[in-house]
Amino acid sequence: MTAYQNDNVFAKILRGEIPAHKLYEDSETLAFMDVMPQGKGHCLVIPKRAARNIFDADQAMLTAVIDTTQKLAIAVKKAFNADGVQIVQFNESASGQTVFHLHFHVIPRFEGVPLKPHTGTMEDPDALSENAARIREALA
Amino acid sequence: MTAYQNDNVFAKILRGEIPAHKLYEDSETLAFMDVMPQGKGHCLVIPKRAARNIFDADQAMLTAVIDTTQKLAIAVKKAFNADGVQIVQFNESASGQTVFHLHFHVIPRFEGVPLKPHTGTMEDPDALSENAARIREALA
Repeated sequence: MTAYQNDNVFAKILRGEIPAHKLYEDSETLAFMDVMPQGKGHCLVIPKRAARNIFDADQAMLTAVIDTTQKLAIAVKKAFNADGVQIVQFNESASGQTVFHLHFHVIPRFEGVPLKPHTGTMEDPDALSENAARIREALA
Repeated sequence: MTAYQNDNVFAKILRGEIPAHKLYEDSETLAFMDVMPQGKGHCLVIPKRAARNIFDADQAMLTAVIDTTQKLAIAVKKAFNADGVQIVQFNESASGQTVFHLHFHVIPRFEGVPLKPHTGTMEDPDALSENAARIREALA
């Protein structure tokens, strides 16, 4: 497997080199908004330590990441009164992974509302800020 | 949230009331083949204890399930020489959940091969048996 590369966009967010709409942080994990959301409130959970994906993650990292993923799943359901939440985690390009730092997608789902494709179009920053504030409030 | 109902198909598999192509088992988790696979080697990881989905899962259960999910992800990649692996976990009908016992989908992915829809068509039992044997061998 290809080794971890520390120039990926999530590594840059972790180092503070590029901004993110942060939602939650603890010693092992960080959660923030996906800037190309497939639906309202789509966010991401990552470990702070380096892992390319699930193949090279260690047990402590996975435990911390799934705990934070659960916190965010509960929070986004509450924040947006969602009907459901979809958790997705891609490993390698063939599965849809585009950023090679382990991440879990947390996507609120609403009856009758299909997911948008991952188009590469950036969401309006004000909409991201507003949704991030709602999720932080639900986490509090 | 609706309470856990113990007449779901995974609860029946856990009680031995209906058969499954079992892949892995420990004190907290069970892994087995999805009988309506979206791709070759599609399998499922569930906790043995009752949880409807991620909203009511406890921490020990989630830790155990994500550890087994990682084991299966590594095993299916090896078993089928997959290019990637997709992990998906649905919570409530609006997100795609159809069996209301917490489960993680582990789906091998291959370059250029799209996922099949969850059609409700059962896979040929011999194909499931053969794929299950390959995954068990990769786990061994």
